Amino acid sequence: MRRQTVTLKDVARAANVSPSTASQALSGTGRMTEATRRAVVEAAQKLNYRPNAVAQGLRTGSVRSIGLHHLHAGDRFASDYFREFVTGVLDGTQRADYDLTLLSSNPQVPRNRVPRVDGVIIADPIADDLRARQLLDSGLPVVAGEHPPDGMPDCPVIAADHAGALRQILDRAAAHGVRRPAFVGPDANSGWGVLLRAEFERWCADQGLPGATGESRFGDLSVAEHRRVIGELLAREPATDLLVLSSEPIVQGALTALEAAGRRVGSDVLLACCGDSPTLAMTAPPTTAVDLHPRALGMACAELLIRLVEHDAEPPEAPVLLPAEVRWRASLPGGARVPLG
Amino acid sequence: MRRQTVTLKDVARAANVSPSTASQALSGTGRMTEATRRAVVEAAQKLNYRPNAVAQGLRTGSVRSIGLHHLHAGDRFASDYFREFVTGVLDGTQRADYDLTLLSSNPQVPRNRVPRVDGVIIADPIADDLRARQLLDSGLPVVAGEHPPDGMPDCPVIAADHAGALRQILDRAAAHGVRRPAFVGPDANSGWGVLLRAEFERWCADQGLPGATGESRFGDLSVAEHRRVIGELLAREPATDLLVLSSEPIVQGALTALEAAGRRVGSDVLLACCGDSPTLAMTAPPTTAVDLHPRALGMACAELLIRLVEHDAEPPEAPVLLPAEVRWRASLPGGARVPLG
Repeated sequence: MRRQTVTLKDVARAANVSPSTASQALSGTGRMTEATRRAVVEAAQKLNYRPNAVAQGLRTGSVRSIGLHHLHAGDRFASDYFREFVTGVLDGTQRADYDLTLLSSNPQVPRNRVPRVDGVIIADPIADDLRARQLLDSGLPVVAGEHPPDGMPDCPVIAADHAGALRQILDRAAAHGVRRPAFVGPDANSGWGVLLRAEFERWCADQGLPGATGESRFGDLSVAEHRRVIGELLAREPATDLLVLSSEPIVQGALTALEAAGRRVGSDVLLACCGDSPTLAMTAPPTTAVDLHPRALGMACAELLIRLVEHDAEPPEAPVLLPAEVRWRASLPGGARVPLG
Repeated sequence: MRRQTVTLKDVARAANVSPSTASQALSGTGRMTEATRRAVVEAAQKLNYRPNAVAQGLRTGSVRSIGLHHLHAGDRFASDYFREFVTGVLDGTQRADYDLTLLSSNPQVPRNRVPRVDGVIIADPIADDLRARQLLDSGLPVVAGEHPPDGMPDCPVIAADHAGALRQILDRAAAHGVRRPAFVGPDANSGWGVLLRAEFERWCADQGLPGATGESRFGDLSVAEHRRVIGELLAREPATDLLVLSSEPIVQGALTALEAAGRRVGSDVLLACCGDSPTLAMTAPPTTAVDLHPRALGMACAELLIRLVEHDAEPPEAPVLLPAEVRWRASLPGGARVPLG
């Protein structure tokens, strides 16, 4: 026997209110006394009333949830950056009473279907991530947290001002007398890597300095691999007196490579990182790094996406840049000049 | 003009495969060469094929996403326990290629609607959380990570073996000569608090020892408030020689209260905590605490819920208990007897 479906009308009748009042009471909207609202909620519970979510979605077109895609979502709570970014996204969704769906990620296998969300944030878009591409092609509103690499479909972008922070570091290093700068960061798979590298090379050209570069793989956490990359760069360019590195694991690799090469960080070679993390304040010596304010970035992404979903804003045409701040530490001091060498 | 809809048949024709092969290729299932799968994915991208998620959901009844409800989801990445628990849930969802929806939480305001998910994990269910109750009444499959308090609707439960770990701590403290034990933990709003308190009182009765207790509020992170609660308990029970505390912020409050009272932790008063966190290994002295293995708990919740959603398991009738391990440290050593006093 098919079980009788309890309707909103049944709930309204039991609570002695109109169906529209019952609907408002259950959705947390409308103006009524707390007693009325409670009476409706209790009637709904007593009758075991279940709003039909699929029917509601078909009616309003909204599920009040936004998705968050990241290349390695499952592993990433180990990363301070991603944790702070997600916390910021939650700051934004929670304020608007939206849910946040962390999308299952596997860059090599396409998704089963378009996720059941109103829009998607793509954190750190990477060129060879098939699922990021699918989402960009899905027709859902998308906001990218950080610059998509060339060749990916267009979407609104919110990013930290990496170039501005990198220029501050390079200018300060030049004031310390640096002559042989080097940069190691991700390859063309990452829009962020491309931007940092281009800014580094432009600055070197402006200053008439030779600029050495090395490549890492975005998201690679292996310190041993980074030690190898930095070791090779130092063997190729032994006069290197500044290392600008994209992220924390590369710094850890560089510190061991520099020690093995007998170099002293903060005196005969300066060092800076394009993203900060608590461990960088605890290296010996502490590492100058850029605070990308990931929590503010996550919140800005959520707020823009929700406004786009609710047709409350037009997509910005140019990337929105949020300020990034250099945290000056002993590996490349912000103050008085260091006598190099 | 209405845009022509691209169907799965169009994709199959373009890739020169059968519609069922095309479907399997796009869902990441079936047996085929990588070249075939790539050809289908490329055809789908070229034709801008969009699987109709709502139609799929109506057909299969599944959205391949599970929800996670927590009282203060937005604030909780600051908590090591919750971060590890979420990581474990992602371990489970990622393996099954499900999404994970972090549900917006506001204990006082009902949700707009049932979330668009296949089932829900309720982490740390609390009696006065209106949204947790709504979810338990929603008809969705639910798994609770930790014991719901009395009076909440029934559901399958997976929990750490708190009682077993607490007994180990109490037995060890008795071997050290403790005569005046005290417990401070959450009130009846928390099923976990009720369980710990009952186990503590049972143990004291068995041993013929007086047991003092104090109450905290679940999720309260205020060290000052906990210092006040512990200070009052010490004023009432100055002979207390063991403090068993439910969580890390209470330990921080207790350490300052004990110092103000001139008590020395690990010698004239022993101290243990019912949940571990990295900071507890760094207190002075380090605090004995129970490792609840939150990541394993989160993964077990996700795996059970997905099996229930897929009708691949029956709901367990009794709570499933996962092992918890005491990390013995100087505040209550696991080894040789401490001369108390």
